[in-house]
Amino acid sequence: MASIFTRIIKGEIPCYKVAEDEKHFAFLDINPVQRGHVLVIPKKEVDYIFDLEPVELGELHQFAQKIAKAIGKTFPCKKVASVVLGLEVPHAHIHLIPMNSESDVRFGGDKLKLETAEFEQIAAKIASNI
Amino acid sequence: MASIFTRIIKGEIPCYKVAEDEKHFAFLDINPVQRGHVLVIPKKEVDYIFDLEPVELGELHQFAQKIAKAIGKTFPCKKVASVVLGLEVPHAHIHLIPMNSESDVRFGGDKLKLETAEFEQIAAKIASNI
Repeated sequence: MASIFTRIIKGEIPCYKVAEDEKHFAFLDINPVQRGHVLVIPKKEVDYIFDLEPVELGELHQFAQKIAKAIGKTFPCKKVASVVLGLEVPHAHIHLIPMNSESDVRFGGDKLKLETAEFEQIAAKIASNI
Repeated sequence: MASIFTRIIKGEIPCYKVAEDEKHFAFLDINPVQRGHVLVIPKKEVDYIFDLEPVELGELHQFAQKIAKAIGKTFPCKKVASVVLGLEVPHAHIHLIPMNSESDVRFGGDKLKLETAEFEQIAAKIASNI
């Protein structure tokens, strides 16, 4: 069965899309730990990121770099963190999270609850900064 | 002044080295969150990982991929997490951490205290699995 992320890429499940190219897709995490929390994924459905071919892994991070720079413009911060855990959804994904302290990147804690309008605004702003 | 990581690369500060090539270096985190916690760095001294040239960023992650696979062989686990925060040492670094649950990758908590002999054993085992 297609992963939830493949269904998002195909438009079968809605998302707040930030960007895509031929091989990659970026959209807002629906349970963000910070405003501007984006997921970057390969369109190829691979569970474990290190199972990508080296060339694919390199290209994925290069795509993520463009998105990270746009996040940093949209949400001024010390750095944009890049985190790959991958135990929940079996489709490789990079979390990009604007960060001013390490505690801004806590996955165990409460997630932000944002309204649809704010998600849409954030996605549009990041996209316009790419 | 050279970063602490540049001094490690140069051998001015000792480390438990796992691997290196022309452009990259991998060594054990001295304050590991798990056994097998490795830092992967570019030899080029850049603070923010997303300030690397895209080609450099891709190559760094491809080098990290080899190390991650060796960590996974040495410490069987669900996945090896890859985390870039970078607020403490101003020299870009990827944390690679063997993980069976997300709570295995908590930076805020207590770090492991290992003896020199165990650090040496871990570094040698990972190196032999590359």
